[in-house]
Amino acid sequence: MNILLKTLCGFAYVTMAVSVPGKAQAEPQASHVEACMPCHGEDGIAPASDVPNLAGQNERYLFNQMMAFKSGKRPHKEMRYMARYLSKSDIEALAAYYAALPPR
Amino acid sequence: MNILLKTLCGFAYVTMAVSVPGKAQAEPQASHVEACMPCHGEDGIAPASDVPNLAGQNERYLFNQMMAFKSGKRPHKEMRYMARYLSKSDIEALAAYYAALPPR
Repeated sequence: MNILLKTLCGFAYVTMAVSVPGKAQAEPQASHVEACMPCHGEDGIAPASDVPNLAGQNERYLFNQMMAFKSGKRPHKEMRYMARYLSKSDIEALAAYYAALPPR
Repeated sequence: MNILLKTLCGFAYVTMAVSVPGKAQAEPQASHVEACMPCHGEDGIAPASDVPNLAGQNERYLFNQMMAFKSGKRPHKEMRYMARYLSKSDIEALAAYYAALPPR
């Protein structure tokens, strides 16, 4: 019983650490993260000062901006192109991934 | 002579720490920083997840985005309003200020 309780608590802890409240959060596809890297850095810290760091940025902000790039609401030729074939759940996964990375 | 050298080195260090290479960087006006606070936090860490953290963000990116809000190139009603009466040098000072704050 004690072991079961510990296992359940451990599971709850891990689930809380990686998920958005109320829903399961998938890892982003490796190819999607790789597509971000040249401009936003391997670890979400951009090598150029005119490109934003993504590491530790707020998750909902990242999600909203990617959706806005995809729709063209936030105009940005390259980012619109990058977001074009990403689904809403792909973007959710990317936003959660970068929000969870440690900031500079 | 030794004291003079130390003083000069100390001055150079402080100057390097707060300035953009090649030009003097003014502190932002307190009223300008106060205007950012309600949404972006006292320390550049936004209290809401749909608002970006500014602390530690890349300086040129912050400058470019504020100029884009001001011109309407990046559409955002509230941010356009906020940037409306800020000069280029006001925006330079704000960008340098938030870029230098420690990220979360």
